[in-house]
Amino acid sequence: MSQPLRLGIAGLGTVGVGVVKIVRRQAAMLEARTGRSVQIVAVSARDASKDRGVGLGGYAWETDPVALAKRDDIDVFVELMGGHEGAAKDATEAALATGKDVVTANKALLAHHGQALAEQAEAAGRVIRFEAAVAGGIPVIKSLTEGLAGNEITRVMGVMNGTCNYILTRMQDAGLPYDDVFEEANQLGYLEADPTLDVGGIDAGHKLSLLSSIAFGAKVNFDGVELEGIQRISIEDIDQAASMGFKIKLLGVAQLSGRGLEQRMSPCLVPADSPLGQLKGGTNMVVIEGDAVEQIVLRGPGAGEGPTASAVMGDICDLARGFRVATFGQPAETLKDIEAASSNSPAPYYVRLLLEDRPGAMAKVATALGDAGVSIDRMRQTQHDDQQAPVIIVTHKTQRRDLDAALEAMHGTGVMAGDPVALRIETV
Amino acid sequence: MSQPLRLGIAGLGTVGVGVVKIVRRQAAMLEARTGRSVQIVAVSARDASKDRGVGLGGYAWETDPVALAKRDDIDVFVELMGGHEGAAKDATEAALATGKDVVTANKALLAHHGQALAEQAEAAGRVIRFEAAVAGGIPVIKSLTEGLAGNEITRVMGVMNGTCNYILTRMQDAGLPYDDVFEEANQLGYLEADPTLDVGGIDAGHKLSLLSSIAFGAKVNFDGVELEGIQRISIEDIDQAASMGFKIKLLGVAQLSGRGLEQRMSPCLVPADSPLGQLKGGTNMVVIEGDAVEQIVLRGPGAGEGPTASAVMGDICDLARGFRVATFGQPAETLKDIEAASSNSPAPYYVRLLLEDRPGAMAKVATALGDAGVSIDRMRQTQHDDQQAPVIIVTHKTQRRDLDAALEAMHGTGVMAGDPVALRIETV
Repeated sequence: MSQPLRLGIAGLGTVGVGVVKIVRRQAAMLEARTGRSVQIVAVSARDASKDRGVGLGGYAWETDPVALAKRDDIDVFVELMGGHEGAAKDATEAALATGKDVVTANKALLAHHGQALAEQAEAAGRVIRFEAAVAGGIPVIKSLTEGLAGNEITRVMGVMNGTCNYILTRMQDAGLPYDDVFEEANQLGYLEADPTLDVGGIDAGHKLSLLSSIAFGAKVNFDGVELEGIQRISIEDIDQAASMGFKIKLLGVAQLSGRGLEQRMSPCLVPADSPLGQLKGGTNMVVIEGDAVEQIVLRGPGAGEGPTASAVMGDICDLARGFRVATFGQPAETLKDIEAASSNSPAPYYVRLLLEDRPGAMAKVATALGDAGVSIDRMRQTQHDDQQAPVIIVTHKTQRRDLDAALEAMHGTGVMAGDPVALRIETV
Repeated sequence: MSQPLRLGIAGLGTVGVGVVKIVRRQAAMLEARTGRSVQIVAVSARDASKDRGVGLGGYAWETDPVALAKRDDIDVFVELMGGHEGAAKDATEAALATGKDVVTANKALLAHHGQALAEQAEAAGRVIRFEAAVAGGIPVIKSLTEGLAGNEITRVMGVMNGTCNYILTRMQDAGLPYDDVFEEANQLGYLEADPTLDVGGIDAGHKLSLLSSIAFGAKVNFDGVELEGIQRISIEDIDQAASMGFKIKLLGVAQLSGRGLEQRMSPCLVPADSPLGQLKGGTNMVVIEGDAVEQIVLRGPGAGEGPTASAVMGDICDLARGFRVATFGQPAETLKDIEAASSNSPAPYYVRLLLEDRPGAMAKVATALGDAGVSIDRMRQTQHDDQQAPVIIVTHKTQRRDLDAALEAMHGTGVMAGDPVALRIETV
């Protein structure tokens, strides 16, 4: 008879309560599957008196998560507080320093301090598991680290921020402008306290940096992620994309090029009939491509009590079973310091310009593109009533820097009536 | 420094060669990820002289797979021969009896003998891993057994025979009848030597029985799978389904009902805009629903050298890392003997009838349905030139046995000009 696995849970928000519920409700099932009893010993949250809809009376209460992490009667420290500095970081370090494994849903913490924490964990013979930090209930970390361990990964892509996908889907379905849908999402409580984390692509960028570390055996490099949010996407972009058979998604892409590791989180056009293009609302999707497996697509809820708690429980069950994969899939000391490469792998681009409606404007634009070596696949000037002409261009495959040079040159011609929008068309 | 993990590979067909290639090409990567060197010690196949496009000279050769399985210089027996009796079974048993873990792609073997083999493995302190047996490169066994271990699974569904999905997709896209596309698939080498394994749903049924064992903690019960093939699906069915917003898929569904475990592998209508409905060609898809995670959808190639070898390698890497999950996710002795329930959970049905074109025929059909308690949602008689009238009916939710009673009664009325087709409309 194995010893029970003893948990200390820090953070009793939605996810923490979800984990407590599963451990209580499914005790017999968890023991049958893992061969051990999974028990909560102690919990920590700011307000002990709050009714969280689940019985917590049997557990020791710690006001200080660091004190919880250091308790000698727990085996696993479950960090569900969030935030990449302060209590979450201190408590995680304290847990590792005192010999606990750590299960966390904290993408920001690992995106900023993953390498140092992984090294600390390994020095202590412990692991950090973080399935819940990426793509909610989808077992994507496990698939990448274990199921696809025989693959040289060639590309990882994902729609990993449900709020952004909700906003973009809703703009299209309801024909509403960004600002209205943003406000709607805010009212519905879908946005982070700092909404830039969502719509600026930061939250999704954190997730991408974790996936690319595992995929390419690289040290986490969140600063190497080129971030671009969805704030400038207009209904016109969505409609124009749709008319050409595309959807606009806040898409993360990580791939190795000859010059280094490209990581970008930005609005992209993807084929409307691809799995990514068909994804609606708050659902997440991760696409993994490997030399042997070709392409795997994983889809599921990206947030919420049940799905996120499911991911946390998967990690806990692994630890109960004694499965300890290295934090980023291989020993931290073997992770490479791969240089961040700017997103220059060639792709077609969608470009929306607003031109002064006067003779020769279009010629100046076409010349700027040609001079930069960017060739045009399709171009259309859409109907307009005022003095400004919207122009949509789809380029042939080009490098982003050449396109940027062309856009820069256009600015100098005096025909531009507004800032251009340039979105990569990703092959999926 | 850990000891190398030593493999003996029986079967050097497409998948076996794929595994050899990965082990040779990715030696450094595999060692970085698992912390051990993964080495092939010995192989077995009928013809040692055949050129398989990969170097095999460094490995011991065994003509007899049982002799390979018994070698004391291997840790893992990799069974890639196929077949549920004979050499594959003998060799697997011999491997377990002599203390090896087993990795296999053999769905038939486990569908027929999974319980006995799992018990034998556990008695010997070994495990059988079979990621490659279900849905090719998709890490579905791992997701279900480990990633979703905190979930009470409520339903598992899947399109798990690429050949059937190819045939159905091709019929729709090219407007070709079943027989023509079947012949085409045959020419392309997509069909098993006994094509009934594919088009009769047997191969996919094997896979479903393995998934439902893990999902519901039940002993594998392939005999409990209600099997229905795609041989009777006509273009008209596909077109009628499409006109109502559905696609026809050979869909496996496993779920617990009050009366036991329902397992069915049969052609079903699914919404055209659902992930299952959008699946084309040889790609596989598995949908897993759990009480916490809600719904996860996994999609990927269901067959082929690379994808299947990827799945085998995932299992091998787990063993190299020392991860040994019980064969069906929990100890074999704890697996329940859940009674097979016939597929009576209520659902709407699509029914195509061919009636004698004479007055009162439709009334007799409607009466038979009404008498059996089956109510009609939609009904249409399609255009026809001859003496027989095709009628399409969509029922409200009904139990299959009530529908069958109605169809039985219709037969007695003398108005039926052919056998009816009745397909479940699955909510996805």
